[in-house]
Amino acid sequence: MLKRLACIAATCCATTLAHAQDIEDDVTSFTLDNGMDVVVIEDHRAPAVVHMVWYRAGSADEPRGASGIAHYLEHLLFKETDNMEAGEFSRVVAENGGRDNAFTSYDYTAYFQRVAADRLELMMRMESDRMVNLNITQEDILTEREVVIEERNQRVENDPGSLFREQRRAAQFLNHPYGTPIIGWRHEMETLTLEDALAFYERHYAPNNAVLVVAGDVEPDAVRALAEQYYGVIPANPAIGPRDRVDEPRQLAERRLQMRDPRVAQPYVIRTYLAPERDPGDQETAAALTLLADVLGSGQTSVLVRKLQFDTQDSVYASAFYSGLSLDDTTFGIVTVPAPGVPMQEAEDALDQAIAEFLEEGVDPDQLARIKFQRRAQLIYARDDVNTLARRYGAALTSGLTVADVQDWPDVLDAVTEEDIMAAARMIFDRNKSVTGWLMAPDTDLAQAEMTTETEVTQ
Amino acid sequence: MLKRLACIAATCCATTLAHAQDIEDDVTSFTLDNGMDVVVIEDHRAPAVVHMVWYRAGSADEPRGASGIAHYLEHLLFKETDNMEAGEFSRVVAENGGRDNAFTSYDYTAYFQRVAADRLELMMRMESDRMVNLNITQEDILTEREVVIEERNQRVENDPGSLFREQRRAAQFLNHPYGTPIIGWRHEMETLTLEDALAFYERHYAPNNAVLVVAGDVEPDAVRALAEQYYGVIPANPAIGPRDRVDEPRQLAERRLQMRDPRVAQPYVIRTYLAPERDPGDQETAAALTLLADVLGSGQTSVLVRKLQFDTQDSVYASAFYSGLSLDDTTFGIVTVPAPGVPMQEAEDALDQAIAEFLEEGVDPDQLARIKFQRRAQLIYARDDVNTLARRYGAALTSGLTVADVQDWPDVLDAVTEEDIMAAARMIFDRNKSVTGWLMAPDTDLAQAEMTTETEVTQ
Repeated sequence: MLKRLACIAATCCATTLAHAQDIEDDVTSFTLDNGMDVVVIEDHRAPAVVHMVWYRAGSADEPRGASGIAHYLEHLLFKETDNMEAGEFSRVVAENGGRDNAFTSYDYTAYFQRVAADRLELMMRMESDRMVNLNITQEDILTEREVVIEERNQRVENDPGSLFREQRRAAQFLNHPYGTPIIGWRHEMETLTLEDALAFYERHYAPNNAVLVVAGDVEPDAVRALAEQYYGVIPANPAIGPRDRVDEPRQLAERRLQMRDPRVAQPYVIRTYLAPERDPGDQETAAALTLLADVLGSGQTSVLVRKLQFDTQDSVYASAFYSGLSLDDTTFGIVTVPAPGVPMQEAEDALDQAIAEFLEEGVDPDQLARIKFQRRAQLIYARDDVNTLARRYGAALTSGLTVADVQDWPDVLDAVTEEDIMAAARMIFDRNKSVTGWLMAPDTDLAQAEMTTETEVTQ
Repeated sequence: MLKRLACIAATCCATTLAHAQDIEDDVTSFTLDNGMDVVVIEDHRAPAVVHMVWYRAGSADEPRGASGIAHYLEHLLFKETDNMEAGEFSRVVAENGGRDNAFTSYDYTAYFQRVAADRLELMMRMESDRMVNLNITQEDILTEREVVIEERNQRVENDPGSLFREQRRAAQFLNHPYGTPIIGWRHEMETLTLEDALAFYERHYAPNNAVLVVAGDVEPDAVRALAEQYYGVIPANPAIGPRDRVDEPRQLAERRLQMRDPRVAQPYVIRTYLAPERDPGDQETAAALTLLADVLGSGQTSVLVRKLQFDTQDSVYASAFYSGLSLDDTTFGIVTVPAPGVPMQEAEDALDQAIAEFLEEGVDPDQLARIKFQRRAQLIYARDDVNTLARRYGAALTSGLTVADVQDWPDVLDAVTEEDIMAAARMIFDRNKSVTGWLMAPDTDLAQAEMTTETEVTQ
């Protein structure tokens, strides 16, 4: 009954929502003579602007042994330049009523400010300055190293789920640097030097390796003029070529991990499979995987939630996740949190059983219609937040995609059929490319599949 | 009864064998002015000589993405130099009644010839030539790349055990290049270039990164004179510093792998634990681990063989293995091949049970006495083969050890107590640092611990 009502709701609302292609973002894009890409997103509802510079350089571009240097450098960009003193950048943004920050991922590092639209030029002046004029002292480097190590303490060392994720990713990627944490391995962070940071800066920070995204109450021509004035005068770095990444070898053996930590309040079973990412002009498989994750794990009527949380009640939380936004192969994941009293192996077996049944039963057309409706709705609602739009373009353009790919994406998603989703499911669930993890408290019940029995040797 | 007899034999023979310190190898070592280490091992029983040059450069010194370049370069060293044509080196050795070859490992690459003693000078002339005068053409590089890829086909792709080992090592080492196969990942081997090979050659091949080992019917003074004449004239490469290796992060989660391959005739369970290696002047832990491996898995009276092959008969083969000869952390391993009809999980449980019992029972002093006796005997017998001796010194000196460490090793082994072995056992069996692998045929019985059940999804 619930299902039927939801279906009706989906059908009627779909008619009131514009199709994806009709709600195209108001985007202008061009490239400066020095190779810097620019994306302008107009939104004149408020006199504000988001100014972002994205570099095509993330943790997966780090040299071996210097993990964490991309994120560390991100911190150092708030220190001295030839024209600003340490901390001046953020202070000026705040004094002008704005806010700023930065973030680092596997494939990119990005800096952004949200300010009143008439402060855009000031942002460009400062951001273009630190693109090439960083002037760090040895003193800053040591203090800031402590800061990023403390950030690791807070985000990773204090969180068994994060530690577990690091161990799982290291097992997932046999060769590729996606197996190295973005924030860095702690023992390598402790040895990072000013030379490491400057080498990364000089190698990757240049206009021809950057994407400028300006979103808000701006006109493209005015943005172009300012961009040429501030960024266009910076020479390209001719040494920057195509991104140099290693590939995975064939993955031939399924992997399993167990981790126990007394801080684990809720044990869980999680499995990730190596998965293709969105490629320029070739997003169909990623779109099918995106909707497969929705079909399996998004919302109360999704397959895993329905089967595991409602039917068998083996699980108190079940989900599936996938994001195709990645320069290289990424992962598709499924997870279940066992209900109290359900042993880990039983929870995993139930998860596998649910997937197996799904492969027999196929996609429920009503559910797929609802999911597509929700995706369209998300795209429309996202337009209300220029920051979200700006991030979407910035992340895509530093993950190997084009503006056209971003704009095609809603249609590509919309064109996915039930058969596409089942084909994606049959392709992705290859155990040889998977890592299954059990995160547990020391006393979590393993039942039959006990890997660490009373014969286990510990010290 | 058998045990008692063996014990008596050990006791009586021990008295007839010299102690390790009394049978010290007849070794002279020195360093040339350009930094090249030289080890001379005298053995005048036959008018032959083994001439070896070892480089402190192996696969673990390769740049990321160019796996296999160390081994590939080893092949290319048999091609043209400024003074020799391709193939001339080996042809001349053969024409002089000798044989030659080369090998590459994680920590070293070595070239050797065994010839009549009066041909030593000729070997030095040719070997010193190819240390710096390599002059490879683009043609050779492509042909030889096919050769090493074919070598990989033969040694790895055709052997599920080798493929499995690669996958296990990649899971064992989260960060360290020991997780990359020596021969290289196939997809990277296919892209290796002449530039890659020459870059590795220029970076690592120099007298100050090499060890010359000459063993056989030679006098140290004569070897020194020849070494100075041929190798001593080659300038040191000042750019070569200490070896630059990354460390492992903390390993926090036990890992398990399953691989199925129709070519597997005999399934097995294998577990490796991250383990310390022999360090200069600090070999005690490695010595205890060496004897622990013997106690557990070497010979008919060893713990795993006795318990698993004879007592429970769960296993048709059980063993333990460890070699401390490694620049960085290595592994300690245990393995069992289940008897027909014994499911994999049962075999693993029996293995764990045997280890647990051993930790309760401790080391049998008689067994340890026999093992030490056998180790001493091995050292004495090894003296009969100068090739073995030469390899021992070459491998040690390119794995971070000194001549003194090699010579101390028998005494360090001899000093290991039962308590040392138990302490090493309690230290090493840490599941969080382990990888457990099951290699199976597609129809191998998993019994209860079935990871790939009928709900498994395959394509």
